[in-house]
Amino acid sequence: MLTKVNLAEKLAQFGEHWSPKIVGELNDAYVKLVKFRGEFVWHHHADEDELFLVVRGSFVMHLRDGEVRVSEGEFVVVPRGVEHKPVAEEEACVLLLEPKSLLNTGNVRSERTIDRPERI
Amino acid sequence: MLTKVNLAEKLAQFGEHWSPKIVGELNDAYVKLVKFRGEFVWHHHADEDELFLVVRGSFVMHLRDGEVRVSEGEFVVVPRGVEHKPVAEEEACVLLLEPKSLLNTGNVRSERTIDRPERI
Repeated sequence: MLTKVNLAEKLAQFGEHWSPKIVGELNDAYVKLVKFRGEFVWHHHADEDELFLVVRGSFVMHLRDGEVRVSEGEFVVVPRGVEHKPVAEEEACVLLLEPKSLLNTGNVRSERTIDRPERI
Repeated sequence: MLTKVNLAEKLAQFGEHWSPKIVGELNDAYVKLVKFRGEFVWHHHADEDELFLVVRGSFVMHLRDGEVRVSEGEFVVVPRGVEHKPVAEEEACVLLLEPKSLLNTGNVRSERTIDRPERI
């Protein structure tokens, strides 16, 4: 049988910010949930496009040529190679879809780097 | 700059059931939106896993060994090779994530088959 994933139930299972949790997988990709608050680091992913779908709240995706606010019920895809930095004044809950190979901080190593995301 | 996709705005642009619309792409996959109502055909996808995330309403995913109701804020992944048939008593709005190669009716051709999904 199939495993059904309830986003709200999964989001209730963790509180940390900037620590994506794996909640599903298909083909070569993971579905992750993450909570944003504050400012992430500038980075890019050389070989992977990344989808950000806001489940609750909103955040601003900063790009070198501008910024886009993404709110509940909206998504953006950041193409490979494009530098970006998510910023959230208040907590935002976001569903990510990204290749299994993707590292959260991309080309940068920082205190925010998470080599092995937890599966919940 | 990035294109932001608002799910509600896209859903307001079409009314047909069982006719997935492409609303985004990343890596080798399309993000689609579809409206379910009634009963689809039994089928499987030999080489592709498929994600169904309910944006509005609910539907029942029938499988040969049981069924799972999927409601707003929930998703299931149907693994490749697994026969399935979505059924919705009332309209359900669903986000699909699937490889670009995927045909909506999988191994079956029927009046429901859509060879070239529209991009909206």
